[in-house]
Amino acid sequence: MAVIYRVNMSDLSIRTEMPGVKYAQTGGRGLTSAMIAAEVPPTCHALAAENKLVIAPGILTGTGAPCGGRLSIGAKSPLTGTIKESNSGGQGALALAALGIKAIVLEGRPADGKCYRLIVNTDGVKIEPADGLVGLGNYETVGKLLGEFGDKVACISIGQAGEMKMAAASIAVTDVEGRPTRHCGRGGLGAVMGSKGVKAIVVDPEGGQRLIPADADTFKAGAKKLNTALKAHPVTGEGLPKFGTNVLANVINAAGGYPTRNFREGQFEGTEAISGERQHDVILERGGQIAHACHKGCTIKCSRTYLDKDGQYVTKGPEYETVWAHGADCGIDDLDAIARMDRMDDDFGLDTIEAGATIGVAMEAGIVPFGDAAGAIKLLEEVGKGTALGRLVASGAEVLGKAYGGSRIPTVKGQSMPAYDPRAVKGIGVTYATSTMGADHTAGYAVAPNVLGVGGSVDPLKPEGQVELSRNMQIATASIDSAGLCLFVAFAVLDDSTALDGICEMLGGLFGTPFTVDDYLAIGRATLAAERKFNAAAGFSPADDRLPDFCKTEKLAPHDAIFDVADEELDQVFDFVE
Amino acid sequence: MAVIYRVNMSDLSIRTEMPGVKYAQTGGRGLTSAMIAAEVPPTCHALAAENKLVIAPGILTGTGAPCGGRLSIGAKSPLTGTIKESNSGGQGALALAALGIKAIVLEGRPADGKCYRLIVNTDGVKIEPADGLVGLGNYETVGKLLGEFGDKVACISIGQAGEMKMAAASIAVTDVEGRPTRHCGRGGLGAVMGSKGVKAIVVDPEGGQRLIPADADTFKAGAKKLNTALKAHPVTGEGLPKFGTNVLANVINAAGGYPTRNFREGQFEGTEAISGERQHDVILERGGQIAHACHKGCTIKCSRTYLDKDGQYVTKGPEYETVWAHGADCGIDDLDAIARMDRMDDDFGLDTIEAGATIGVAMEAGIVPFGDAAGAIKLLEEVGKGTALGRLVASGAEVLGKAYGGSRIPTVKGQSMPAYDPRAVKGIGVTYATSTMGADHTAGYAVAPNVLGVGGSVDPLKPEGQVELSRNMQIATASIDSAGLCLFVAFAVLDDSTALDGICEMLGGLFGTPFTVDDYLAIGRATLAAERKFNAAAGFSPADDRLPDFCKTEKLAPHDAIFDVADEELDQVFDFVE
Repeated sequence: MAVIYRVNMSDLSIRTEMPGVKYAQTGGRGLTSAMIAAEVPPTCHALAAENKLVIAPGILTGTGAPCGGRLSIGAKSPLTGTIKESNSGGQGALALAALGIKAIVLEGRPADGKCYRLIVNTDGVKIEPADGLVGLGNYETVGKLLGEFGDKVACISIGQAGEMKMAAASIAVTDVEGRPTRHCGRGGLGAVMGSKGVKAIVVDPEGGQRLIPADADTFKAGAKKLNTALKAHPVTGEGLPKFGTNVLANVINAAGGYPTRNFREGQFEGTEAISGERQHDVILERGGQIAHACHKGCTIKCSRTYLDKDGQYVTKGPEYETVWAHGADCGIDDLDAIARMDRMDDDFGLDTIEAGATIGVAMEAGIVPFGDAAGAIKLLEEVGKGTALGRLVASGAEVLGKAYGGSRIPTVKGQSMPAYDPRAVKGIGVTYATSTMGADHTAGYAVAPNVLGVGGSVDPLKPEGQVELSRNMQIATASIDSAGLCLFVAFAVLDDSTALDGICEMLGGLFGTPFTVDDYLAIGRATLAAERKFNAAAGFSPADDRLPDFCKTEKLAPHDAIFDVADEELDQVFDFVE
Repeated sequence: MAVIYRVNMSDLSIRTEMPGVKYAQTGGRGLTSAMIAAEVPPTCHALAAENKLVIAPGILTGTGAPCGGRLSIGAKSPLTGTIKESNSGGQGALALAALGIKAIVLEGRPADGKCYRLIVNTDGVKIEPADGLVGLGNYETVGKLLGEFGDKVACISIGQAGEMKMAAASIAVTDVEGRPTRHCGRGGLGAVMGSKGVKAIVVDPEGGQRLIPADADTFKAGAKKLNTALKAHPVTGEGLPKFGTNVLANVINAAGGYPTRNFREGQFEGTEAISGERQHDVILERGGQIAHACHKGCTIKCSRTYLDKDGQYVTKGPEYETVWAHGADCGIDDLDAIARMDRMDDDFGLDTIEAGATIGVAMEAGIVPFGDAAGAIKLLEEVGKGTALGRLVASGAEVLGKAYGGSRIPTVKGQSMPAYDPRAVKGIGVTYATSTMGADHTAGYAVAPNVLGVGGSVDPLKPEGQVELSRNMQIATASIDSAGLCLFVAFAVLDDSTALDGICEMLGGLFGTPFTVDDYLAIGRATLAAERKFNAAAGFSPADDRLPDFCKTEKLAPHDAIFDVADEELDQVFDFVE
């Protein structure tokens, strides 16, 4: 039995709903985007009662599918004004799926402005006051909740940034150890959760069960294929477990696409000191853990635990994007300082990409100098204090840039560009420009064939072929995000056709119907179509599908590259949508 | 001889250009919008070198046309992202016109970030360092400049807000007394001037001359017609000179359209204390001046000088919009406090509408309570200090609202709605929604027939007829703004056909060709068409031509009105544009 819970925060009522035929074969991003597109007025204010927050495990989540534990959360974004889905690892999705929950939909807004917590278990959903949690960071919040509900529960929570309804606020999801280290980071969805007056959702899977596929043999065969492919691929089988996502730092720096000091250069002189290789050594020296899984059933294990010099736990990872955002983009080469900022971001509940990029813009504005790690930490501390400056930091690069008169703001649709300079990696530039959710590398990771030699090879410095590449990847990604699979399965999928066969067999096995690659990609196409339609109704037009002008006018060293994919070409990315 | 000066602030060079046939018969907004649309990349950052600031007197400015002294300034707006024209009274336009200057175009941006002043006289334009002026408010800036250049010069300058490149920064123009009281207020054009590194433009008309019409008799006959109509109309002949623009406070409050406490109510209990009638008495009691002209040749004289209790000059007016923004919209009923804030706005160089509306949003966010005049003044003081909070106040309601998690932000395209609630005055709501420049009452003043019984009568509470009304007014206004006439001539034009005849005769007389009403309105249509085209290329679509959602969902007392002009109707406003 699959169920959708609608939690009305205006009158504190709960309604139970069957997904029906319409939503029976979707989940994750496919479900969140379909529901937001169908139910949220596109022009509403993202923090108004009319917006909804849809929390949905992926289609395959809870089936035992390898790397299938992603949790999608969707809403109209307060950061971008577009539709938004952001997904996270951790235990949240698995716990929800074990309870047979297709989605929890937060609707309305408490008239009294009070803060609540939701308790979700086999009895359903209960709304309770969150008085003891108000104003706490994510670490203390989930610490208290696990203390009260036991360490088997998963928590989905917001920190101070979400409570303050900041546009860079994330939603934290607890990992295997019950730490709030995994985040639906992008697009400010934590602010939407904050606007609904929900501080935390405790999901107790006790008494729940694994989803039983209709055709268990086909499912199992598929799972095995994917598993084998993941183990065999050098990225998912070796690179990611050993060095984590930050294995990319040296690679992207060497390619001249590692954005440095607010996207002024493409190579950072301090890369070695913050690279995945150095991080690997530091972690092991201090007794931290590499090859750590962020949720049960992850076979890639790109996570790690980072300890300080005294061997005390600081944070997970940190991930490639986080290291870049607080590192190269700010001219900072101090891994310990970066780890501390990662911990602060997770605790306040901030998207690490947006937070770091915003500090980069603040540095360009002269608030603190580039390279000043202590100054960057102080800026972040302001967020916790709720000062005007802290609110600017937590509102993202575009807002801080505006308040400080900046003109080089590295955002698309209000969201900061991640750790690949679009001038030197043009395929990802197409994705940044055209993604339905603002600048986002995960929406269509063209870096793989542009730089990594995965999924073929497309010259990163030439405009040719990037649009087709990005289009195909955006479709495939929307399918992956709907399936609830970790995006990193794509490395195997791109190079090994048995991986994709495996995914289709798992889906076919689950539903008990034949499931082709076309069926699979149709999920992605339909999802993108719904998202594009929402955005058009919200006021987005082709001219919004553009990179910031400086990417077209300022040459990026060392390749002296500009972004030169023609506007007319960018407008062809979604040529499959009506 | 008419001339366009192009001032390149990147290499500090000046180029002199003839307007050519293309620009021979236009001026003011018609010229600024045509040049911006032709020369500025619509997707550029408004503070980037690619943007241009075009400063142009109206077509009739300098001819002796009554009320013909408006100065248009245009650019891509850092506040709205749209094309923008903002016009002002004062002596600036007359001084430029006397020198035969069609436009001064500020281009590029100083690489060294230094600050300059321009000296404009019969010799042309000179660029000089502005070292002694950096960081000063407008009053001190123009005080120094008039001390140096004499009291015959006109100054066009920015205060601290413009230097900081704040999105609510205005451009000040000196009045007849040489005070920086007249402002191109809206759209943050002061930030564009700041980004060009130009602190002030000194215009010395010495040696210049009045424009000589080709057909002086026709021109004179037209001027006389307009003059007579202005004197005869009760608004321009009596109401405005006696009570100033703030004569509207009681009228709009009585109509239930006076936005109170951040647009929560339509009537303010403190209106009487801040009304134009009370203001009239206070001004005369203290020895201030009513019926004051903001520039030579103004026959309406709606300006006034406001003194404090000790008889010391504080500020001009203050105007209706300013009194509302810092008064009713903030729940403040203290005319002296409002006058002090008006003076601060003028000195820092802030749009008084945006500044007041932003304080209203800050009050709703709980930064200071509604009605707290001292708190409001303190917020404004932060602007001068350049603190993070001050920068938020100077960045406008949308940015401050975002940083404080607000969801009732009274803006369209990022610009605050002025002093008429669109739910109770629906014609002006159509103008706010669809204007090419964000929420702006002057773009199509439907209040006249909606509330004032001028230009016929259209029920303000019904959706019917508002689109046609707004369309016609937006066209007529774009023509008036191009002619360089004060918008207030429209009161006479709407009720007395001889006024419009007079305008056409002045234009025909000036050019020495027959000039029909159709010719006149064609200027407005062409201007709007160019503006719409620019905005579309900048990413604006029909879904951007909407009021904030709360206007459609929250009923406004006392009429319990919502804004219910259908979206499909709004999309018909510009049906005359390709």
